[in-house]
Amino acid sequence: MTKNRLEAFSDGVLAIIITIMVLELKIPHEASFEALLKLTPVFISYLLSFIYIGIYWGNHHHLLHLVHNVNSKIIWGNLSLLFFLSLIPFSTGWMGENHFSGIPVALYAVNLLLCSIGFYILQQCIMPQLVQQPKLLDALSKQKKKGILSLLAYLVAIPFAFYWPIISYLLFIGIAIVWVIPDKNIEQALKT
Amino acid sequence: MTKNRLEAFSDGVLAIIITIMVLELKIPHEASFEALLKLTPVFISYLLSFIYIGIYWGNHHHLLHLVHNVNSKIIWGNLSLLFFLSLIPFSTGWMGENHFSGIPVALYAVNLLLCSIGFYILQQCIMPQLVQQPKLLDALSKQKKKGILSLLAYLVAIPFAFYWPIISYLLFIGIAIVWVIPDKNIEQALKT
Amino acid sequence: MTKNRLEAFSDGVLAIIITIMVLELKIPHEASFEALLKLTPVFISYLLSFIYIGIYWGNHHHLLHLVHNVNSKIIWGNLSLLFFLSLIPFSTGWMGENHFSGIPVALYAVNLLLCSIGFYILQQCIMPQLVQQPKLLDALSKQKKKGILSLLAYLVAIPFAFYWPIISYLLFIGIAIVWVIPDKNIEQALKT
Amino acid sequence: MTKNRLEAFSDGVLAIIITIMVLELKIPHEASFEALLKLTPVFISYLLSFIYIGIYWGNHHHLLHLVHNVNSKIIWGNLSLLFFLSLIPFSTGWMGENHFSGIPVALYAVNLLLCSIGFYILQQCIMPQLVQQPKLLDALSKQKKKGILSLLAYLVAIPFAFYWPIISYLLFIGIAIVWVIPDKNIEQALKT
Repeated sequence: MTKNRLEAFSDGVLAIIITIMVLELKIPHEASFEALLKLTPVFISYLLSFIYIGIYWGNHHHLLHLVHNVNSKIIWGNLSLLFFLSLIPFSTGWMGENHFSGIPVALYAVNLLLCSIGFYILQQCIMPQLVQQPKLLDALSKQKKKGILSLLAYLVAIPFAFYWPIISYLLFIGIAIVWVIPDKNIEQALKT
Repeated sequence: MTKNRLEAFSDGVLAIIITIMVLELKIPHEASFEALLKLTPVFISYLLSFIYIGIYWGNHHHLLHLVHNVNSKIIWGNLSLLFFLSLIPFSTGWMGENHFSGIPVALYAVNLLLCSIGFYILQQCIMPQLVQQPKLLDALSKQKKKGILSLLAYLVAIPFAFYWPIISYLLFIGIAIVWVIPDKNIEQALKT
Repeated sequence: MTKNRLEAFSDGVLAIIITIMVLELKIPHEASFEALLKLTPVFISYLLSFIYIGIYWGNHHHLLHLVHNVNSKIIWGNLSLLFFLSLIPFSTGWMGENHFSGIPVALYAVNLLLCSIGFYILQQCIMPQLVQQPKLLDALSKQKKKGILSLLAYLVAIPFAFYWPIISYLLFIGIAIVWVIPDKNIEQALKT
Repeated sequence: MTKNRLEAFSDGVLAIIITIMVLELKIPHEASFEALLKLTPVFISYLLSFIYIGIYWGNHHHLLHLVHNVNSKIIWGNLSLLFFLSLIPFSTGWMGENHFSGIPVALYAVNLLLCSIGFYILQQCIMPQLVQQPKLLDALSKQKKKGILSLLAYLVAIPFAFYWPIISYLLFIGIAIVWVIPDKNIEQALKT
């Protein structure tokens, strides 16, 4: 019951984040192919962020499966994750509008870094509830390792953004691919 | 339980898509009939897209009834459908603002084409769960045929947009009518 | 189950409608009382529409209690109501920005008229499900009478808008008060 | 059942309020650190309001736990709270854009004051349902005392805003901290 509202609120926030990003695709005044093509970088950055929010939604969904009862720690852990995710439309739009130039790409990396820290915090808040379920605890630990690796990749992407932003961008895509291919540990641990 | 969140998230995204389109109806500064009449093409394109999102919501609703357990394939099939649908406010606004001229109408047709491909992908992701339910499988196959016919109609609408956009537009309306009149196969198959 | 998604989708759309209206309260550049006071008509029209959407949410909530199983008629009746309600932010903003001048107030009356027609249609779609429940049918009939009276008041408000818009506005407030004081017929009929 | 929709609608409105505030973080045209730094006051005011909406969401969540059956009083008490909260994005944006100058900070204090009055009204609407549950009634009374203290602090913050807005701002932060550290009375009273 309590968990339902936490999920419903998070789903609402994530649904709005994923959808308001499309408002950055400003409708051009001319009805020409050129006007459409100019939107390519904004579109590409929207696509990437859509996938990232999708990944976070999926992981959030699995993670909350592990929660027995919602306490204030979990509420604030969840809110801090949502706060960092709510900045994604801003950093996505800035990166797209400036054609993936240095500083905006670095900010995007910082934003993804903050999101992964937020997710880590939420995992930490949930962990104490699993002390007597070694299998779930084990699955969560594996997911946390994957999270720390991503976190390090985002850290690496920050300095690269200033010299070869394309490498940072490829890192973002690479980490997204790693997470899109889903982590079946939690699912399997829940079944057994 | 898992299905609930998939539905809730999709409902959230669809509700936002259907509602942010109205923001394209920019409030005119003058309080005159002329100012209102100028909004007619934007209003007509909004009405059409509202109906299309309504159709997708209804079909999505029926389709997810068939799902037993949510897996990663279904999550990503669903997200790809939502991504294509999230572009509808953009293509709707562009078509309305340019008074149904060639390129925007063609883009709208491409967008509807992508949405129907996204829906087809989601149907494919769900199909393996129905192998032992021949009646549901049969109902889904019928729905897929209807989907492929629509898909072909959108394909036809693309070249027409450049010469007689009105024909493309009539095609959009025609296909909408076909889908508004609901497909009772899945409903009936679920009952038996 | 099916009803849950109809409610969730409607709640989502209504929540967005009620909230995006506040975006019309454009943030002034100067930090002065004058800048704030200039927003008064926009604020007043926002307040009125907030109350109207609140009333529709409450009535929608009671009305859907009567539904046993969702069919396509109800889905489309509901979508037509949501469509007319989705135009409220536009007509509210136009009325507020033009300081309650004739044409925008008339359009607002037309919009409320369309919403009450949409609600009537939805009531009609639900009625056949109640044939064997005379008490609920009776409660719904009473609510429909109230709806028709409101509908007539909105009709009267249209011509008045062009000569004495203040009378139209007082009519809007009057009808809102009638509906804010809740109709307990359906609630009581459901209990017995 | 009835309560579910009240929660779902409130969650939707709160999720949208918390998310549209980020739209005030206008994407700068230049890709420079300076452009980013200029957004600092807008960012700080966004962060504070995000925390406040989070606090209201958490308290709303606990408060509705106490509700047995939803009546019209509770619906309108809830709507009045949501109305005051819906003004937060406006007052937040105005305060951020004007770098915490006097009048906008005073308006923000007024807005928080109205929200706490709205919450008090909702508490009053729910109280009659708890007459036979002394423990819950006691927990609610304690929460109300905390609310009245906050309300007084907001009152104090209004005149300060015109002379030392920084003191008002520190008051906002102080009250937020008091509420972030959660009130366990209701939770404990529900358990016993």
